[in-house]
Amino acid sequence: MMDTVNQMYIEQLNEDEKNIIEQVLKGFESKRQGTSTSYVSAMYAMEHEFDGETLSITMPVTPIVYNSLGMMHGGITATAIDTAMGMLANKIAPSNKAAVTSQLNLHYTAPIYGGIVRAYAKIIHHGSKSMVIEGWIETDAGKRAAHATGSFYLIDKKQ
Amino acid sequence: MMDTVNQMYIEQLNEDEKNIIEQVLKGFESKRQGTSTSYVSAMYAMEHEFDGETLSITMPVTPIVYNSLGMMHGGITATAIDTAMGMLANKIAPSNKAAVTSQLNLHYTAPIYGGIVRAYAKIIHHGSKSMVIEGWIETDAGKRAAHATGSFYLIDKKQ
Amino acid sequence: MMDTVNQMYIEQLNEDEKNIIEQVLKGFESKRQGTSTSYVSAMYAMEHEFDGETLSITMPVTPIVYNSLGMMHGGITATAIDTAMGMLANKIAPSNKAAVTSQLNLHYTAPIYGGIVRAYAKIIHHGSKSMVIEGWIETDAGKRAAHATGSFYLIDKKQ
Amino acid sequence: MMDTVNQMYIEQLNEDEKNIIEQVLKGFESKRQGTSTSYVSAMYAMEHEFDGETLSITMPVTPIVYNSLGMMHGGITATAIDTAMGMLANKIAPSNKAAVTSQLNLHYTAPIYGGIVRAYAKIIHHGSKSMVIEGWIETDAGKRAAHATGSFYLIDKKQ
Repeated sequence: MMDTVNQMYIEQLNEDEKNIIEQVLKGFESKRQGTSTSYVSAMYAMEHEFDGETLSITMPVTPIVYNSLGMMHGGITATAIDTAMGMLANKIAPSNKAAVTSQLNLHYTAPIYGGIVRAYAKIIHHGSKSMVIEGWIETDAGKRAAHATGSFYLIDKKQ
Repeated sequence: MMDTVNQMYIEQLNEDEKNIIEQVLKGFESKRQGTSTSYVSAMYAMEHEFDGETLSITMPVTPIVYNSLGMMHGGITATAIDTAMGMLANKIAPSNKAAVTSQLNLHYTAPIYGGIVRAYAKIIHHGSKSMVIEGWIETDAGKRAAHATGSFYLIDKKQ
Repeated sequence: MMDTVNQMYIEQLNEDEKNIIEQVLKGFESKRQGTSTSYVSAMYAMEHEFDGETLSITMPVTPIVYNSLGMMHGGITATAIDTAMGMLANKIAPSNKAAVTSQLNLHYTAPIYGGIVRAYAKIIHHGSKSMVIEGWIETDAGKRAAHATGSFYLIDKKQ
Repeated sequence: MMDTVNQMYIEQLNEDEKNIIEQVLKGFESKRQGTSTSYVSAMYAMEHEFDGETLSITMPVTPIVYNSLGMMHGGITATAIDTAMGMLANKIAPSNKAAVTSQLNLHYTAPIYGGIVRAYAKIIHHGSKSMVIEGWIETDAGKRAAHATGSFYLIDKKQ
C-alpha cells in the first residue's frame, strides 16, 4: 500500500487530512530526535516543561483530536493530562523505578474547540510505593477545561 | 511540506512509522465513508458493535498507541473506553439531545502489549439529565485491563 | 456529665434523639457480642451477608444518617459501600494481610429517604498487591441510589 | 427500652461507650441550637469555618469513627470531606438552589489514628448547573490523609 500512497494517495487528501499527516510526520521526526518518547506524544505534538514543581505539556487542538461533536475528545484530554502526570511521576521516582498509572479520575468542565491547550501536573502525595498527582488542562484563554487526580504505582524498571 | 512528503519522505520511514501512516490513511478512508465519525476513532481503527445493551469497540494495539514504556498509553485506553461509553450514551439519548462526558474514573488493572483490545460500555443509571455508564477493556486473552465509570450530561443538539 | 445523663437528660430527648440513642446502645451490644467489629458499623446497625461472591450489608435509614436536606448523607452512603467493599476485600485477602481503601469513587444516582438500604460489593480485579472492587447501594424498592468502585491495598497484618 | 437505659444501662457502659454517648448527647444539643444542621455533623462534633474561599471543618477522632483496624473509617473521612464540600457548595449556590453531591472521588494517603482532623473544601469549577470542588483532610500534625474531588448538582430548593 505504501507505494500507492507515495505516488498518488496523498494528493487526494483534503485539507484536514493533509494537516494531520504533516503533524504525524513532524511527530516521527521529534521521536527520532528523542524530543518525544512515544508515538502518542509525538503525533499530538506535545511539548513539555518542568519548573521543578509543576510539569506542563502544550499541544495544538486540531482535527486530529476532535470527537464527533467537533470538540477535543475527552480521551485525548485524558491522554494529555495522564502524560503530564506520568512524566512528573517518573521525574520524581527513584532512578530504578518507573511510575505507571493505576487510577485516573477526570472532571470535564468546559469544551475545547481549538488553540493550544496546556496540561499541568503537580504532586499531591509522594509515598514510597505510590503517588497521588493532580492535573488539569487550560485553554488558550486560561479557562480550566478539565481537572483530574491520579494514582501512580512505582514498579521496578526493566534492566 | 506535503510535496516533499509525497516524493521522498515516506520512503525514509521505518517499519513502525510506515504502519502508522498506513493505519492513519485507512482511517481517513473509513471517516470519508462514515464508518468512523471522528479522526480519533478513525486513526485508531476503532470498530463498534451494539447488541441493544452493551456497546463494544475493537482496536488494534500497535506502536501508534504505545507510551514510552512500550505498552498501551493509559490515555488511549481511556479514549477507547470513553468512545464506547459516549457512543452508547448517544444511542440511548433522546434524538434532540447529545451526551457529553462530565466525569470519567478509570482503574488500570493490567498492562496491554499488543493484539486487539475490546472496550465495552453498559448503562448503570439513566436519568433525564445525566447518565452513569460503566466501561471496561479486555485484551485478546480476555483479561480485564481497565475498568471505568463515567458520568454523561445531556445537552441540546445544535440544529 | 454521665451522671446528669443518667438521671434526667435522657427524659428530655425528643423522639428522633431517643431512637438514635436506642440504636447506638443496641449497636454497643452487637459490638460486644462481636457481631459488629467497629462502632461505625455498630451504630449504623449494619448487618452483613456473604454468598461467596457478593458481600452485602443492610442498614436502616433513620435520622441518624440524614444530611441537612433530610436525606441519607452521601458520606454515610459511602460508609456503607466502603464497609461492604472492605469486608469483602478482607475475606478474599490472604490470612496474613489486611486490605485498606486507597481510593474510592462514587456516583450518586438517587436520593434515599428511608427504609432499609442494602449495599453490595463484588470483586472486579484481584491482584497480588491490590484489588479493585465495585459496590452499589439499593433502596427498599430496589432502586440503585449509588454506584462505586474502589481500590484496596494489601498491607501486612499487625501481629 | 429507654427507661431501662435511663436507670441502669448507661452505668454498664465501658469508657469508650460512655464517651460516645456523651459526644452524641452534646451533638443533640448543638443540633437544637442550630450549630449543627444534621445529626451526622452533630454526632461527629463537626465545627466549620469559612474564610470566603476555603470552608473547613474540624472533628475529633475518637472510637466513634474507628473502623475495625482502629483507625478512622474511610467512609467517615468521606463524610467529613463531603460535608465540607456540600457546605461550601450551598454557600456559593444561588439562594433558590440547593447543591447535592452527584459524584465523589477520594484518595486515601495516610491512616488517621486520633487527634483533631480538619477537612477543607475549595471550588475548582463553578458552572450554572453544577460545580466541581476539591477537598482534603489533614491530621493534627498537618499531614494530608485524604484528597478528593466532587461534582455537585444544583437543584431547586423546596419552598
